[in-house]
Amino acid sequence: DLRQQLDELHPADIAFILESLPLDDRLAIWQLVKADRDGEILLEVSDAVRESLIADMDRHEILAAAETLDADELADLVEDLPTAMLPELMAGLDAQQREQVQSALSYEDDQLGALMDFEMVTIREDVSLEVVLRYLRRWDELPAQTDKLFVINQDNLLTGVLPLHWLLVNAPDKMVSEVMAPDVNTFHPENDAYEVAQAFERYDLVTAPVVDDHGHLIGRITIDAMVDVIREEGESEALSRAGLREEEDIFASVWASLRNRWSWLAINLVTAFIASRVIGLFENSIERLVALAALMPIVAGIGGNSGNQTITMIVRALALNQITAESAKRLWRKELTVSLLNGLIWGGVIGLVAWWLYDSLSLGLVMTAAMTLNLLLAAFAGVGIPVLMTRFGRDPALGSSVLITAMTDSGGFFIFLGLASIFLM
Amino acid sequence: DLRQQLDELHPADIAFILESLPLDDRLAIWQLVKADRDGEILLEVSDAVRESLIADMDRHEILAAAETLDADELADLVEDLPTAMLPELMAGLDAQQREQVQSALSYEDDQLGALMDFEMVTIREDVSLEVVLRYLRRWDELPAQTDKLFVINQDNLLTGVLPLHWLLVNAPDKMVSEVMAPDVNTFHPENDAYEVAQAFERYDLVTAPVVDDHGHLIGRITIDAMVDVIREEGESEALSRAGLREEEDIFASVWASLRNRWSWLAINLVTAFIASRVIGLFENSIERLVALAALMPIVAGIGGNSGNQTITMIVRALALNQITAESAKRLWRKELTVSLLNGLIWGGVIGLVAWWLYDSLSLGLVMTAAMTLNLLLAAFAGVGIPVLMTRFGRDPALGSSVLITAMTDSGGFFIFLGLASIFLM
Ligand SMILES: [Mg+2]
Ligand SMILES: [Mg+2]
Ligand SMILES: [Mg+2]
Ligand SMILES: [Mg+2]
Ligand SMILES: [Mg+2]
Ligand SMILES: [Mg+2]
Ligand SMILES: [Mg+2]
Ligand SMILES: [Mg+2]
Ligand SMILES: [Mg+2]
Ligand SMILES: [Mg+2]
Ligand SMILES: [Mg+2]
Ligand SMILES: [Mg+2]
Ligand SMILES: [Mg+2]
Repeated sequence: DLRQQLDELHPADIAFILESLPLDDRLAIWQLVKADRDGEILLEVSDAVRESLIADMDRHEILAAAETLDADELADLVEDLPTAMLPELMAGLDAQQREQVQSALSYEDDQLGALMDFEMVTIREDVSLEVVLRYLRRWDELPAQTDKLFVINQDNLLTGVLPLHWLLVNAPDKMVSEVMAPDVNTFHPENDAYEVAQAFERYDLVTAPVVDDHGHLIGRITIDAMVDVIREEGESEALSRAGLREEEDIFASVWASLRNRWSWLAINLVTAFIASRVIGLFENSIERLVALAALMPIVAGIGGNSGNQTITMIVRALALNQITAESAKRLWRKELTVSLLNGLIWGGVIGLVAWWLYDSLSLGLVMTAAMTLNLLLAAFAGVGIPVLMTRFGRDPALGSSVLITAMTDSGGFFIFLGLASIFLM
Repeated sequence: DLRQQLDELHPADIAFILESLPLDDRLAIWQLVKADRDGEILLEVSDAVRESLIADMDRHEILAAAETLDADELADLVEDLPTAMLPELMAGLDAQQREQVQSALSYEDDQLGALMDFEMVTIREDVSLEVVLRYLRRWDELPAQTDKLFVINQDNLLTGVLPLHWLLVNAPDKMVSEVMAPDVNTFHPENDAYEVAQAFERYDLVTAPVVDDHGHLIGRITIDAMVDVIREEGESEALSRAGLREEEDIFASVWASLRNRWSWLAINLVTAFIASRVIGLFENSIERLVALAALMPIVAGIGGNSGNQTITMIVRALALNQITAESAKRLWRKELTVSLLNGLIWGGVIGLVAWWLYDSLSLGLVMTAAMTLNLLLAAFAGVGIPVLMTRFGRDPALGSSVLITAMTDSGGFFIFLGLASIFLM
């Protein structure tokens, strides 16, 4: 039956099923899951779905689920658990685990310390590989993802790493100290998680040691955690570009969705209102030449599209650290040139169409000029907004689409209606 | 000096430096790189930068670089090399390598076969772990990322896998057949690379075997290739959303940038022109009430913003396979409800402002109604466009921002000016 099928599934697969179901079905399935698997499944589901599952569990079930977890996993869950339960939870741990949970909780979500794993194999350098092999045979299983052993001295200082590959291809009578490598990819708990993920990607790492300021080994980082960081970075960039505060469970309540979306909608309302007032400045001109009302959204729209292309590219390049002060200048020049050409080409086409439609050469020329100027504004803002955001320590993707559109809308209306008022009235 | 510093860097670091430099500086550094490292660096740089480097190399240098590469790596490069050189390149390979290169080239870029690695350790099941350990000691080094050995029979059929962990924790006198596991995560070269990457992410895999239809082992997939697939998927989603055809080297020529961006700009030009003609239909009304010209971009803009929020969320959920026919209906209902509420709240606010600004209650009411209807249209299209794109086998992110904005612009103008013509004229 269904219960048995669930028992045979990987926790990540059960998590996927739970995420794909609306709340009532989700909770029905959650009831069927064996209690001793609750913990590992809670780790796999998204934050929004996790909240909905925990809300359905009683104190007893939560404590039972927590007991099946390691310190680092428990730390991942803690912030989503009822605060009232924390003392009881912590009391159930031994001193070392408690310290590990507290250490993990002491770091921000985007710091490596919050993603550390505390299970690892450590060895001494003054033994032979044979001894290491015998030592490993005493383990029931090695910690997941183990691709290297960490070599420490009696003060717990990391002195090197011994990849399993080297343990296997070298003669067993060699000493660890002869074979081990000083590890060049050692990280600190304060490091930015995304930067470390980029290092994992660049150097094709599977695990890496984490040491404190004195070089003491305090944990390790595994590739599976870094893969999650890389995927989440891509997702949160897409979300923040569109002005969504956070990941939204697709079955989230209407109320949760409203809360998630209202802030950027409100900002957009203000910017749209400003654009509207810009048009209001030129009501006289529009009354005298109503064609302006029909043509002005073209100027604004093309600027918005082109600006979004530029800003998307720049946000990416910033995320990859590929823009320096010096190259920014060059980029500006390039983007402005591309926009100038696009303005002359596409603005020219639309100018011809406007001339033909409204039988006015001067209107066509104003249209071409306005489109060219607005595309230049779009290029300027498309490079400038993310560069400025970064300089002030903000996420350059945050609402970038709303901001660039605000500039090209108000700017486009002002340029077009302004030129028209000067040259056509 | 600089040359020596470069020699000490990881190829991925040199690739990063080359990508961050404008063309002339980039080629100057490229000249300083030792010839025997050219191949590994070409593998690491982005497609656009790779093109620029290869254009700077002569036949001789290219052949020398190719000689340092494995078959799978060579296959990655081949499509960027001058076609005239292929016969000479292939002639330099032995029969097995040639077959491997041809096999890799026979798959599409998004198929697993194009990402396979051919170096791996295979063992027989009728030997003891002791024999396996002795066999491994004969290797100089194991293929990168090796976390499991592949167990095959004499017909090259994959019968199981032996994780290095199990080799290490089990007694050496046990037989491989006792210890090995039937591998549940076996893939085929025709598989979609992104789907396999999702499996790596879900099951925390480091390597996995690739077999043909008969179960013969033909290669393996490693986590570092899958990490690249995951990152690229996120990036290409962002690019295609904004209507960029491909990744753009930030120092690409103006000409390359124009080519990359023109197609969606042209589409946007057509949609903007349609929106302009919609306004043209109502020129009479605008002439009589010029306030309409100032207010209409607010209706269109809010619809665009809200529609972009919805479509961003739906594109993500589709990428994660979380939308079924049945849940789509539910989503539609939810999005329409959120939009209705947003329309009544924000449309109400703007309606009040319009009433106050233009001293017309009926204009305020038309504004509120138009905003609500356009937000409903945005929700409908925000779910509908990506779902339809997917049903017709297209990338749901492709130009999604341009398409949704087209709907909410033309739709918004039509709704607002239409209501105004009926109720205010
Ligand atoms: Mg349960
Ligand atoms: Mg969390
Ligand atoms: Mg944690
Ligand atoms: Mg752990
Ligand atoms: Mg890599
Ligand atoms: Mg690599
Ligand atoms: Mg060179
Ligand atoms: Mg390529
Ligand atoms: Mg390949
Ligand atoms: Mg290889
Ligand atoms: Mg995972
Ligand atoms: Mg996992
Ligand atoms: Mg717009």
